Amino acid sequence: MSELNRKSPESLQDRLEQVVCLLEHEVAGEESLDQRGSLDELQLKLEELHPADVAYILESLPLDQRLTVWQLVKSDRDGEILLEVSDAVRETLIADMDSHEIIAAANTLDADELADLAPDLPRDVVRELMDTLDAQQRERLKSALSYDDDQVGSLMDFDMVTIRDDVTLEVVSRYLRRFEILPDHTDKLFVVDTEGVLKGVLPVKKLLVSSPDELVGDVMSDDPVVFNPLDDAGEAAQAFERYDLISAPVVDEQGKLFGRLTIDEMVDYIREESEAEVLNAAGLREEEDIFASVWKSVRNRWAWLAINLCTALIASRVIGLFEGAIEQLVALAALMPIVAGVGGNSGNQTITMIVRGLATGQVQAAHGKRLIRKEMGVALINGLFWGLVLALIAYALYGNAALSLVLLAAMTLNMLLAAFMGVVIPLARVSMGGDPALGSSVMITAITDSGGFFIFLGMATIFLL
Amino acid sequence: MSELNRKSPESLQDRLEQVVCLLEHEVAGEESLDQRGSLDELQLKLEELHPADVAYILESLPLDQRLTVWQLVKSDRDGEILLEVSDAVRETLIADMDSHEIIAAANTLDADELADLAPDLPRDVVRELMDTLDAQQRERLKSALSYDDDQVGSLMDFDMVTIRDDVTLEVVSRYLRRFEILPDHTDKLFVVDTEGVLKGVLPVKKLLVSSPDELVGDVMSDDPVVFNPLDDAGEAAQAFERYDLISAPVVDEQGKLFGRLTIDEMVDYIREESEAEVLNAAGLREEEDIFASVWKSVRNRWAWLAINLCTALIASRVIGLFEGAIEQLVALAALMPIVAGVGGNSGNQTITMIVRGLATGQVQAAHGKRLIRKEMGVALINGLFWGLVLALIAYALYGNAALSLVLLAAMTLNMLLAAFMGVVIPLARVSMGGDPALGSSVMITAITDSGGFFIFLGMATIFLL
Repeated sequence: MSELNRKSPESLQDRLEQVVCLLEHEVAGEESLDQRGSLDELQLKLEELHPADVAYILESLPLDQRLTVWQLVKSDRDGEILLEVSDAVRETLIADMDSHEIIAAANTLDADELADLAPDLPRDVVRELMDTLDAQQRERLKSALSYDDDQVGSLMDFDMVTIRDDVTLEVVSRYLRRFEILPDHTDKLFVVDTEGVLKGVLPVKKLLVSSPDELVGDVMSDDPVVFNPLDDAGEAAQAFERYDLISAPVVDEQGKLFGRLTIDEMVDYIREESEAEVLNAAGLREEEDIFASVWKSVRNRWAWLAINLCTALIASRVIGLFEGAIEQLVALAALMPIVAGVGGNSGNQTITMIVRGLATGQVQAAHGKRLIRKEMGVALINGLFWGLVLALIAYALYGNAALSLVLLAAMTLNMLLAAFMGVVIPLARVSMGGDPALGSSVMITAITDSGGFFIFLGMATIFLL
Repeated sequence: MSELNRKSPESLQDRLEQVVCLLEHEVAGEESLDQRGSLDELQLKLEELHPADVAYILESLPLDQRLTVWQLVKSDRDGEILLEVSDAVRETLIADMDSHEIIAAANTLDADELADLAPDLPRDVVRELMDTLDAQQRERLKSALSYDDDQVGSLMDFDMVTIRDDVTLEVVSRYLRRFEILPDHTDKLFVVDTEGVLKGVLPVKKLLVSSPDELVGDVMSDDPVVFNPLDDAGEAAQAFERYDLISAPVVDEQGKLFGRLTIDEMVDYIREESEAEVLNAAGLREEEDIFASVWKSVRNRWAWLAINLCTALIASRVIGLFEGAIEQLVALAALMPIVAGVGGNSGNQTITMIVRGLATGQVQAAHGKRLIRKEMGVALINGLFWGLVLALIAYALYGNAALSLVLLAAMTLNMLLAAFMGVVIPLARVSMGGDPALGSSVMITAITDSGGFFIFLGMATIFLL
């Protein structure tokens, strides 16, 4: 295996450590000659690395070390590395470049890649950049910029190999040999007519096994999966997963070939979406640069904290309504967070299931009644069982049978409320055209907190005092 | 566009609705002739569909309708459809088949596909199945079954096209034309010596653009990304993303070609991992069949509810310590959930960031001090700011300046605690070899609940009473 380079992530980790070691040597280095030496060595190391690996190293370094490394990267690689780093890290790198450097980096990129970068660039740089492009590139950049982030149009590229359907495979093979290199992810050639209308696709697999004398029109597949630039990117990603696609044509309303989607963009999209889901669930607006300044992090986090504060305040006011009851029976104060907490956990389980099901399309509004019945069934069993466990513990602690019964009833009712709202909230938001995932956890927790306090303290007031 | 079949997800939704409509017609149909007619129509519809689409429809149907559709699927397609459905739904389908049907379905599959299915099959069926395989297939099935779910070995297939390095590309092209069809995701051919040791890979892209007279050895790439069957599947998936791979060879310790990884398996793995992350964060053990019985759902959810109950009970006992204080100043009961809740939200933000960073490798134990400093900085700012807002509101409500000051101090301290533990817990778990993501949210919430109540009520006891 000596000639095979194992680019496994472990060795990537090793390389990161080497870079850090060289950097620290540089910082600690007392003689300037020595310092220069380790920087040169580092520069050589960086040149050997894949742009994605350099990006990974940049993301893993604190700001000062990151910028030292960034300065060492050859300027003709700046563009592809900027494409690979996360948005937050990209911002710090661009902030360190002057407009001349940015334009030089951008000029190494295709229109669709530029479109990914453009939103992060200073406005005047983008304008200057537009002037350096030829007409076709400018047209493509403008059209790529005109789509939303979650539309197919923003993810497509223009690296297509097109052929006619009335030539033989022999001719196609000779045509391909004229290329210096084929675009990445070329698993199929696109068959178009003279108007540029897509007639079908010729999988490379088919080209390789078929006789050279056959006509493209006879071996091509004429019902490929095609997309429109306005299609939803998430649904396109699901189609890529479902049909195991590598690339797929994008056509306009007239059926003209317009661009191409590839699996690598789809994988990035899937990863970003699932990351956003995890981050939003935890109350983070977007991915953070781990080494971002304290202020940047505060800005990323304050919105959800503010919402959380409001819901906590409402729950607090609900308790405030029953201060008299708590004064008379202080055990209520100790037990009420249990009712709220377990209800919140149970509600989060339900709402997560439903939001997932909606995202994959397996839950529809028509299933509402059936799902409510099922979830309330689960809640009833869990509520009665865990409520009983807790009621027994409470009896052992306080020796008050009536209090234990109220606790059992309140836990069960709060879990039923959580199950009902856990189904109804996401279905209602979808039917109003909203995103059922956004803040779902905060919403259900707000309901089970305030609801739990109200049910428990309210029942206590009626039955115990 | 008439000849192009737009397999967009919308039309998939349409097809699901057609199936449901036909099913309901069947159930409602009064004349048996009419009934038979709609089932026949449904069967025709199903035959036209991609196995992944049939799987999607099966997953979206309640159990009774699901089994009706499953009976209509031609038995030679059972195998590929079973591969596509989720684990929970697969269980319901297999439960409906006798061992004869299962073996017939399994016989249409490759060894690596069988390995995916085998864990869900009855034991005696697997044994019977083993006997029907030829020696090579049995060997492969056994080896695939010997790896963990998160090892490369469990995800690889054996559909490789291998060539020698001392032949011309012309010879390779002629060799390929002898195939009826090439394996899916064949973007490169594997170059091996007579011992089966991997020497390099020949990308199909390169084969297409190079002169037929060139030797494989001269155009092949001799440092491909390769994996070992024992490598971590998550790290392999990251390498696929990073280097935009379609397929990659898997070699054993001696460098012998053993199998192949493809992007479709990696995408499935990425999707499953991110789903597990979302589900675990919400306290669900695994993906649920939306239409599962109430009992199945209860089983899937009880473990996290039990843990949550324990942590809630501990928090309750902390409050119990201060019942005397609450009796004297009942406003404490109303305000304490705010301290706990906002601390929990803040701690979840921190721990999610750190767990993400650890998963991508960008956070290391060596960064601990720096990250603690940063997160506590964020917590200090948020704590003082939101604490002040809340202290003012509390003053407006209760007119007690000392109470407001205690509230401000408790909120800030609890958020500092949350930030500290949010960094320390995941780093500590990793250094002990654990999974930092599992139950991280439950753990940090337990700390901020109990800690928040303790800090707030404790300070109130000292300063207010």
